[in-house]
Order: sequence, then C-alpha cells, then structure tokens
Amino acid sequence: MSQDTSTKPPSGMRDFLAPDVVRRRHVTSIVQRVYESFGFVPLETPAIENLSSLLGKYGPEGDQLLYRILHRRDKLQRALEGSPREQDLAEEGLRYDLTVPLARVVANYRELPAFYKRYAIQPVWRADRPAKGRFREFYQCDVDITGTKSLVADAEVCGAVAEALHQLGFSDFRILVNHRALLRALVARAGIGPNAEALALIVLDKLDKIGADAVKQELAQKGVPAAQTEALLEVLELSKQPGALAQFAAGEGALATGARELQELFANAKSGPAAAHLVFDPTLARGLGYYTGPIFEVTCAGLAGSIGGGGRYDNLVGMWKGQEVPAVGFSLGLERVLLIMGEREMFPPLAIGPQILLCRMGDVPAATAIGVATALRGQGLRVEVHADAVPLGKQLQYANAIGAPFAAILGANEVAAATVSMKNLTSGAQAAVPIGEVSRWLSSSK
Amino acid sequence: MSQDTSTKPPSGMRDFLAPDVVRRRHVTSIVQRVYESFGFVPLETPAIENLSSLLGKYGPEGDQLLYRILHRRDKLQRALEGSPREQDLAEEGLRYDLTVPLARVVANYRELPAFYKRYAIQPVWRADRPAKGRFREFYQCDVDITGTKSLVADAEVCGAVAEALHQLGFSDFRILVNHRALLRALVARAGIGPNAEALALIVLDKLDKIGADAVKQELAQKGVPAAQTEALLEVLELSKQPGALAQFAAGEGALATGARELQELFANAKSGPAAAHLVFDPTLARGLGYYTGPIFEVTCAGLAGSIGGGGRYDNLVGMWKGQEVPAVGFSLGLERVLLIMGEREMFPPLAIGPQILLCRMGDVPAATAIGVATALRGQGLRVEVHADAVPLGKQLQYANAIGAPFAAILGANEVAAATVSMKNLTSGAQAAVPIGEVSRWLSSSK
Repeated sequence: MSQDTSTKPPSGMRDFLAPDVVRRRHVTSIVQRVYESFGFVPLETPAIENLSSLLGKYGPEGDQLLYRILHRRDKLQRALEGSPREQDLAEEGLRYDLTVPLARVVANYRELPAFYKRYAIQPVWRADRPAKGRFREFYQCDVDITGTKSLVADAEVCGAVAEALHQLGFSDFRILVNHRALLRALVARAGIGPNAEALALIVLDKLDKIGADAVKQELAQKGVPAAQTEALLEVLELSKQPGALAQFAAGEGALATGARELQELFANAKSGPAAAHLVFDPTLARGLGYYTGPIFEVTCAGLAGSIGGGGRYDNLVGMWKGQEVPAVGFSLGLERVLLIMGEREMFPPLAIGPQILLCRMGDVPAATAIGVATALRGQGLRVEVHADAVPLGKQLQYANAIGAPFAAILGANEVAAATVSMKNLTSGAQAAVPIGEVSRWLSSSK
Repeated sequence: MSQDTSTKPPSGMRDFLAPDVVRRRHVTSIVQRVYESFGFVPLETPAIENLSSLLGKYGPEGDQLLYRILHRRDKLQRALEGSPREQDLAEEGLRYDLTVPLARVVANYRELPAFYKRYAIQPVWRADRPAKGRFREFYQCDVDITGTKSLVADAEVCGAVAEALHQLGFSDFRILVNHRALLRALVARAGIGPNAEALALIVLDKLDKIGADAVKQELAQKGVPAAQTEALLEVLELSKQPGALAQFAAGEGALATGARELQELFANAKSGPAAAHLVFDPTLARGLGYYTGPIFEVTCAGLAGSIGGGGRYDNLVGMWKGQEVPAVGFSLGLERVLLIMGEREMFPPLAIGPQILLCRMGDVPAATAIGVATALRGQGLRVEVHADAVPLGKQLQYANAIGAPFAAILGANEVAAATVSMKNLTSGAQAAVPIGEVSRWLSSSK
C-alpha cells in the first residue's frame, strides 16, 4: 500500500469512538423506547435502493445529492464500450431518507396491518457539501403512520416526537405547524399563479434562515413579480396575528379546510405531550414537494435551523401501490439532537469500557487470570485482563489510560487465598476481596 | 413514476419487518453485552471508505466484490470526457469488512490506548452472487485487540465469541484452530514452493466444502504438481493424529514455533468459556492473506460452512501506521447465527408492538383518548390509539391483526368513571380498571 493513503474517513464521514457511540446510543435508545410506547414497530431497510425508487422524489437538487453505485463487471464493460452518460453507469443508490423506503415497503408487503405504524432509526447518505454540523452520513429517527387520514395520527406523531424530546431532557422546543393547503391558498391570494407556486414554497422555506429581503431577491430573480412577493409576505405576516387561524376556519374553500384541520390537530393533541409545544406558523413551508396536509418543524432556542420535521403526504405511497395510501410522519435528526445535548451538557454519566482491569503478577499463569476474569464476568462485571504480566505500576498506568475505575490485583498470595486485591483507582484504597464477592463488594462500596 | 418500478429491495438486499428486527436485536444485544463484559469498547465507522483503503486487502476476488461509489458532478463530467476506465469513475466504496476500517482507525487516532480492545456490530457490503443464505448486505460482530502479541489476547477473543454463543443458547459448536506459520511449514514440507503457497492456502480453505478430489483438481489446473498436492493432503491428515501438535512443538523452526504458540493459546484458554470448544485442525487455512499467526473458525453441527472466524494479523495495521502493530480478532456472522437459531427455534418469546390497543367509542373525543393513552404510556406501557372511532368489532379485529394482547375500551361511561374496560384478547375476559391502575392490573393478571 502506498504511504500516502489517508487514515481519515472520507470527506463528510465520521468515525465514532466509544464515547461518541455511547452518547449516540443513549439518545437512540430513549427515542426507540418512546416510539415503542406509542405503539410503533421497528423497520429496517437496506442501505442500497434501486435508483428508480429514489430518483424524482427529492427534487432536482436531491437527485444531485444521491450516492450512486457504479456498475460492475459485464454491465460496466458494456457501458464503457459506448459513450456512457451518468444514467448508463449506475442503477442503484444509497438511501437518501427513510420515507421513500417506507413507501416502497408498504407497497411490497401485503401482510402489513391497515394502519402501519413504524419507526426507523437508520443512517442516510447525501453528497452535500460538508460544513460544520453537516455530514454526508447521518441518522434519522422517523415515525410514520400509513393508512389513515385521521388527524389522530398527526397528533400522535407530534406526541411521540415531543415525548422523546422530553425524555431526552428538552423543554424549550417548539413544534411549528402549518398546512400545505392553507399555505397554497395564501400563495394564490397573493396573486402567485400555480406555475410559480412550487418555487415560492421552496424559497419561502428559507425565510427564517435568509430573511425577507433575500426571499424577495431570490423570487424576483426567478421571475416572480416583486408586488406578488410583497403581498405574500404581508399576508403571511397578517396570518400570524392571534385569531387568524379561527378566522380562516370560519371561511370557505381550501384555506378554511386547511385551517379546520389544524384546529382539529391542535384539539387532538391538547391532552398529549405535544400540547405545550405546538405553534401555528403560517410561514412554515417545508421544502419537499410531497407534503399534502399539516406540516411540522421542531425548533429549539438558540439553534439555527430545525432538529426535525415532517408532515402529511397522502400521495407518495400510492405512487407505488397504485391506490391511495394516506400517511403522516415526523423525523428527528440525531446529529442535531446530539449537538445541542453536547453544548448544554445534557448527558448523564455513561458507562464506557471495563469496570475492572485484572492485573496479573508474574507469579500467576495467564490461565489462572483468565479463570478469575471468567468468574468475575459471571457476576455481571465488565473485566479486562491485562495482556502481559509486566510490573504492576505499568498495569495500573494502563488502567488509568482506559478509565477503568478499579484494578483487581492477582498475585500468587491472592490465588492461594481465592481473593483479589481490589484497588479503587480514584481513592487509592485497597482491600482483599474473595473472588465470589467482588460484585457485591463493588455495589456496597459505592 | 413509472408503474413498473419494483417494490422489492435490490437483489441480495433485505427489508427487516418488526419480527425480523426484534430477533436481530435479541442476538446483537446479547453479543454486545458479552463483548462488553470482556472489556471491549464499541467503535462505529462510516459505510463509505476511500477505495485506496479497501483495494488490495481482500485479494483480487475481493476487489471485484467491492461496491464503488460513482463520481458526481464535475469529477464525473471530466471522467466521461475521456475514455474512462473503472478506476476513473470512483474513489470511494462501501465497507467490505470491519477489520480494515479498524486498522485505519488505529492508525488515525493517537489517543487510543496501547491495547485497543474494540468491538463492532455493523453491516458490510459485498457484491457477491446472491444465493440461499448469502446476502449482499450482512452484519458482522467483531472483537479485536491491537497492540499486543500476547496469546492472552488470542485466548480472550476466542473466549468472548464462545461466551456469546453460550448466552445465545449454543452448546455444540467447535472453534477450529490452526496456525499460519505451522500450516506454511507443512505446505513447504509437501514440496510446494513459496510462489504457489498463497494459492495452496486459498484452495485448501475450500477443502471442507469441496472435498480432497476437487482440491487436487483445482491445484492441478493452477499448475501445482499432483504429487505435491497429494503430499500436502497426506501430511495434513497425519497432523490430525493425537499428539501431532506436541510432536511439532518439540521440534525446531517455524513449525515448532507455531505449534508452541497454539499450545500456549490452548493453555491460556483452559479456564475460560472457549475451553471445551477449541480443536486443533491442521487443515484450516482461512482464505484471507493478512493472517500471520493463530487462525480460528467456528463450526456448528448440521451447518455447512462456518458461523465465524478470525485470527492474528500482525502486519495489517502497520501498513497504515508505518510501525508494527500486532492484532488479533474474531468475527461472528449475524446472518448465520440467526439462520441456525431460527431452524432450532432458539428464540425466547420477544415482545413486538403495542401491549394495548386503545379503542375509542364514538361518544368520546379523540383528545380524551389521547389523554388516556398518555396516562397509560406514563405507566411504562406500549399503547396504540385506534385512529378512528369506528364500531368496536372493527377495532378489535385490528387489535388482533397487530397482535396486541389487550384492548382498552373507552366509552363515555368509562370516561365518567375514570376507568377503561380492559379486554384480554386471548381469553375474552373483560374488567373495568381505573386508569391509574392498568399497569399494575396487567402485571397481576399474568
């Protein structure tokens, strides 16, 4: 191998050493337990999907961010004999989100229940430009309910996400809520026609990040008359007034239908964990094209951007299944949650590595040390045996390096007495403890 | 989207619905707990590695099985303007095993302890021809110890794997053990020269699968004289005799060194969990080129092939680090373990899905039902709220479809009394239970 091979992971990718892994597991295990308490069941789909499943679901920008798998052997040879284009070189790609694989699964397995409530906690891959806090491999924690238009489902996915955040220790988050039909009606009211509507939603999605002036500029560049953008921003501002939602709901048409659905959603959620966090935000747009009803986004004080989002998408699953399958879902971004929890020091102490380093003296055979370790492990303890019978000082140094709280010293005397000398590596205190009593001794010495 | 898009996962890939996921988690959580009890700490590396890290580590066949990631945007355009070859179209690939990423990590993070004991449970990808029980995405469960040549490490990785198998319920497995130096000395003794040695090891690795005749034929085709192959098979057969290992150990040279290391390994392991399972097998070869010392393979009665393997590889990590870093590891294949456990019905009952379906009658608002569900979830119960207040019979039918053991029926009467009517869906028995007592009632009614 050449000397210049990098030992770093590829750009945008990360290695997780033990302290990272235990923090990630702390979060995912709580999220998993909460999602299960809401009756969701787990689903895991493969990292690799057919490109035909992925392309066209995430907009043109999304298509560009897909990781594509290069053809192999004969297929590659045949492609290279012509003048290949990108589409001639790949037919598989990496998972880009957890929603499209869910839609495929719902279409594929007829045995799934009428209401399929599934959660998924898996990595996704996007070839985005890496930046601080933005990675090319990252985890999403999704809940979705397919098969019902009932707004109980929308309230339940909001509740599941809110409860997960509560149990992680968050209290100051907001779940912004809007409705695609309501928003589209407001866009139309501002005079923006159906052709520019999708464009307006995509640009509007950036409003909280780039500000009103930049939105005006971007829409102007794309041919939306300034007066229409002004009108849209004004109507959205007015819609933020207290009572605006009730006023919309009292009217007629799509605007009223959307508003009434949001009212029902708020009413459903009022005795659940999301109640204190739901906020109507008429400017919330959500970039993805497939949303059809309520849309959600979680924000947290002091964080630019969101830690999760979702909404109702009643047409996506049906694309595969050939019949309408309504659905609603909510996704938490693991990396964002970890980022805030790290900054705010929200992690409890998390156990990593062995509790005991077994230090073997030169007068004890390795087999004897392994026998003692086996007995201690049988008591439920995490025990590492030092690989060599080097001088004790060196073994204790190593125990400190790996952060083991205790050393169990084993010399010929201890072997004869069927004990180990337990040394507390914080206090330095030492005591002879019968081998069969070590776990009990550790519990009582806390 | 076109109608003919397949809803199946790509060839060799699998979706895991809830019953699969909980069985997989049952196994991985036990393996993880056992690995941690041996003092191993977790590591997770990205799915995508630089091809420069992967190529050349798994032999020419391995290189062919790598998933490569197609270049994007400018890089792809530039490549397509010429007459691209495979190597012009990709510089990243998917993880092929967990050992090469470990070697890269050891070289990259100077803060790792002198002896780095890590475990990893992650998927790997190989574009192998799919077959029964062979997949293109599958999980490995690896333990490795880097930084020591002590045969305590070799005994400990064998012990960790043996204990994991014990705790999963296996008792009839064997850990075949051989030594690369010993085997190479026997190959040389048969007259096979250094040039044909690697070839002989690769073909020998298939001996238990294809038999002696096929081995002779394959080596003959590749230019190894028949007499040499005959001699090799004969010397290996003789080496299976009881006492052969002790006889080798009494001699001199590489054969004796290898044999003495195996004797030390067996001695070290004799008071650990692997003791009853270790068997010297002079025909064991292990295909991969990077092994340098003891090699292992786990076999199980009634299973063709192995459920895991490993060995000592003292040179691989050093390729990156520019200094020798000895290492030994053992890998369990999750899919093989699951296959046998399924066939032998070794899984305990595993909880899936909600314990309670909350059935809401038409005279109860959705918010009230969600409030009751929230209270039950607060008692630690897994509860699904039926999305609609359809007739009770239909809701109970759905409860059966999702396998919920209990229904909690909530009508206006129950709401007034602050109770739910708990219905055991197996026995049909029904009882009014105060909302705050449901968890206690469920525990006592078991």
